[in-house]
Amino acid sequence: MNYKMIGRFMALIFALEALFMLPAYAIALHDGDTGARIAFLISGAAILALSGILFLLCRREKADGFYAKEGLICVGLSWIGISVLGALPFYISGCIPSFIDALFEIASGFTTTGASILAGVESFPRAILYWRSFSHWVGGMGVLVFLLAVTPIGRPGTGFTMHLMRAESPGPDVGKLSPRIRRTARSLYMIYILLTVLDITALNLCGLTPFESLCIAFGTAGTGGFAVTNAGLAGYPASAQVVTTVFMLLFSVNFTCWYLLLLGRVRSVLTDEELHMFLIIVFAAIALICWDVRNLFSSFGETLRYVSFQAATLVSTTGFSTINYDTWPGFSKAILLFLMFIGGCAGSTAGGLKVGRVLLLVKSLRRNARQVMNPRRVEAVRVNGRAIDDRVLANASSYLSAYVIILIASFVIISLDELSPYSNFSAVVACLNNVGPGFGSVGPICNYANYSDLSKLVLTADMLLGRLEIFPMLMLLSRYTWRQHRRPVSLRFR
Amino acid sequence: MNYKMIGRFMALIFALEALFMLPAYAIALHDGDTGARIAFLISGAAILALSGILFLLCRREKADGFYAKEGLICVGLSWIGISVLGALPFYISGCIPSFIDALFEIASGFTTTGASILAGVESFPRAILYWRSFSHWVGGMGVLVFLLAVTPIGRPGTGFTMHLMRAESPGPDVGKLSPRIRRTARSLYMIYILLTVLDITALNLCGLTPFESLCIAFGTAGTGGFAVTNAGLAGYPASAQVVTTVFMLLFSVNFTCWYLLLLGRVRSVLTDEELHMFLIIVFAAIALICWDVRNLFSSFGETLRYVSFQAATLVSTTGFSTINYDTWPGFSKAILLFLMFIGGCAGSTAGGLKVGRVLLLVKSLRRNARQVMNPRRVEAVRVNGRAIDDRVLANASSYLSAYVIILIASFVIISLDELSPYSNFSAVVACLNNVGPGFGSVGPICNYANYSDLSKLVLTADMLLGRLEIFPMLMLLSRYTWRQHRRPVSLRFR
Repeated sequence: MNYKMIGRFMALIFALEALFMLPAYAIALHDGDTGARIAFLISGAAILALSGILFLLCRREKADGFYAKEGLICVGLSWIGISVLGALPFYISGCIPSFIDALFEIASGFTTTGASILAGVESFPRAILYWRSFSHWVGGMGVLVFLLAVTPIGRPGTGFTMHLMRAESPGPDVGKLSPRIRRTARSLYMIYILLTVLDITALNLCGLTPFESLCIAFGTAGTGGFAVTNAGLAGYPASAQVVTTVFMLLFSVNFTCWYLLLLGRVRSVLTDEELHMFLIIVFAAIALICWDVRNLFSSFGETLRYVSFQAATLVSTTGFSTINYDTWPGFSKAILLFLMFIGGCAGSTAGGLKVGRVLLLVKSLRRNARQVMNPRRVEAVRVNGRAIDDRVLANASSYLSAYVIILIASFVIISLDELSPYSNFSAVVACLNNVGPGFGSVGPICNYANYSDLSKLVLTADMLLGRLEIFPMLMLLSRYTWRQHRRPVSLRFR
Repeated sequence: MNYKMIGRFMALIFALEALFMLPAYAIALHDGDTGARIAFLISGAAILALSGILFLLCRREKADGFYAKEGLICVGLSWIGISVLGALPFYISGCIPSFIDALFEIASGFTTTGASILAGVESFPRAILYWRSFSHWVGGMGVLVFLLAVTPIGRPGTGFTMHLMRAESPGPDVGKLSPRIRRTARSLYMIYILLTVLDITALNLCGLTPFESLCIAFGTAGTGGFAVTNAGLAGYPASAQVVTTVFMLLFSVNFTCWYLLLLGRVRSVLTDEELHMFLIIVFAAIALICWDVRNLFSSFGETLRYVSFQAATLVSTTGFSTINYDTWPGFSKAILLFLMFIGGCAGSTAGGLKVGRVLLLVKSLRRNARQVMNPRRVEAVRVNGRAIDDRVLANASSYLSAYVIILIASFVIISLDELSPYSNFSAVVACLNNVGPGFGSVGPICNYANYSDLSKLVLTADMLLGRLEIFPMLMLLSRYTWRQHRRPVSLRFR
């Protein structure tokens, strides 16, 4: 294990986090809010100091290999690190008096979950609200991907950057954009920034203040869901809600599609199987829910606006809401729960199982069923005409197993708190899929404050597991990871 | 597709079902119950007539191949057939006035689910109660396996019997017992009968009437859960509850273990990884629940008796109950729900995902996680020291995918009925895992009568899907199955 390289890398990540606090500091300065200003000053200084110590301890020595394992460990540790350190401003400023609550809140931010333990946010300093919303934006596309995009770390040919990128990016497949990882990271962030700027402009035109437009666009782009007013999106004009609906869906689409569109390869985008499946799921869900709730609204336009917003917010795993959908009929709620599970496309900022992975699972299910019927049959699973490697399929299946195990284990543990099983189940689903609000006691008009510290820690772990797609976090707990191998790669044949 | 052979085979199965009705007819005759006697007479005659017509239509002609596909179709169609025909006595006798209810009840019997739409059963003729309980017994080990054990059908070398056995037997692996399928089927039924007789005797010694002993033993052996009194197991002495606890667990163990024990190969049994996992799950669950409900009972002995009974009844997917566990704390209920999912061992009469399959999933998850860390690593998944074929692993994974898809789809559909999401979810889990009672409106003191006909049909389908482990039922819906292939086996290479 290349501990020194991991240490240096984390020092960089932490320094970047301190840098990210600068705008919040500037806002506090502008608003004349001494409390918030000092909180960010202390937090930033502490993080920089830690970063410096880590860098000195892990000074460069003879180059060693950096393998997939190191990449996964880096990602897992970095995300735990930035969550713990990112909670400091909340805690030091006194806005969130319990450190576990502060950790829950910022982990919910970075993982773009949007689950909150706060009942109201309007009394908070703007600097704190900015930091809370900004965590969505940087967490959505990834802190490490950002680092890869802007710094020249990692020597070519070591596979360093590829392993990091693989571990942090959502979805079962990465690297289609460009053969050069740094260029990919840069393209992703360019598209991300472009779409975010469009969203900010559109929201501003709808009548939101510049600060609100910025924060809501951060929440939309990262598919997070933190708002800056107590009423959330419900308090904004209908036009802003429609704009947000559209952008939530745009950010749930595989960014490869936007990249290909920019290159003019419209045909590749139009024939993308994952995109087809995503659109079918979204429009079918909207149609069925519209039918189910047809009597709750006065006009079809209103029905469509509310239903499409809630469907978009849950399938994109954003978690904004414009209405308390927990009072809708059971059928609609079941469909919304289904959307929470599926989530957006691979390679988007959305959470959930990912449409791409579901597509792989359904296709390999069909293939295997045919092979059961016809055992001599040999057939490849194809997506967009390309044969998928059996390892990728095995990983998608293992992902589902791990997902189900984590879901059940978390549910059992948080059941120690005497909330209803319905609330508990939806809380785990909402955190593991990075959605935010669930149903019942954690519904859109409620929050997570009622859970015990143990449950909050479990749910925080679920958010991180969900955002990093389980494996990087699971690695940290495995004995195999920390064992020293004599040979760098152990080969065993069957 | 070899339609004629499938037809002949189903004719045999139906004739066997008519034969199985004879004891019920005898009981009706003995009790002087004319209504029940006529119901069984008409049902038996109708089934025999159908069987005869089917046999004549599918008279033997030139021999054709019988492949895995035909085996799966046979099993799927037979189980639908015996359920529809087995509902006739309930319907004709007027005990259950709605045919869909009668179908639900007998499918629940054959699939050893034990979910009921009846509020009370004491007013029912004994012949009807016998038929209801007997369906558990024959469904537990399998109607087709029974046929294989007692009749000389299928010529050697055609693979006919193997394909049938594979399709109907629970769990991911079959055929370890004996290389000759007929001998395997016979051994399984010998062990099954032996254990059932032991159970009947023990229950009788505990003070139950012979009829009650017989019916409760049927419910225990098949891990079904229908009782013959309204109070169910709660109305019997504590000794009978303890006996039933023990036998429910015995019937959840892989029958290969009993077979090996009979052969004196104790060591193989003691080192069986699936058995270890099963015992760890059961005892850990009992310990945790005992701790959680420690204040609900007056003594530790009483706590242990109630807790071990409920744990055994849910992990074996039997569904008897001696207490309303729906009033227990959330943590205990979450563990019970977890037990419902897992179910018993492969090759037992229990339902659920099966411990053996969970073991495969966990092991391939660990293997794949290691491969993600170390992509050049090649490692086989081993169970009991034996390397498992990648196809078996792929099938276990596909099973989980199909399971999750069916779970979610069923949940969405039955959510059209305005019961609580909690009840709906547990109803689907209870039916798909062949447990019977769930939580909330389908808890141990409630029943399924409140669901609409559509929901009852969906749940009936879930029970059949669960009992036959999805694939044979799924085949029936696939276009691929019914397509005529020019070549018997189509080979495509990647």
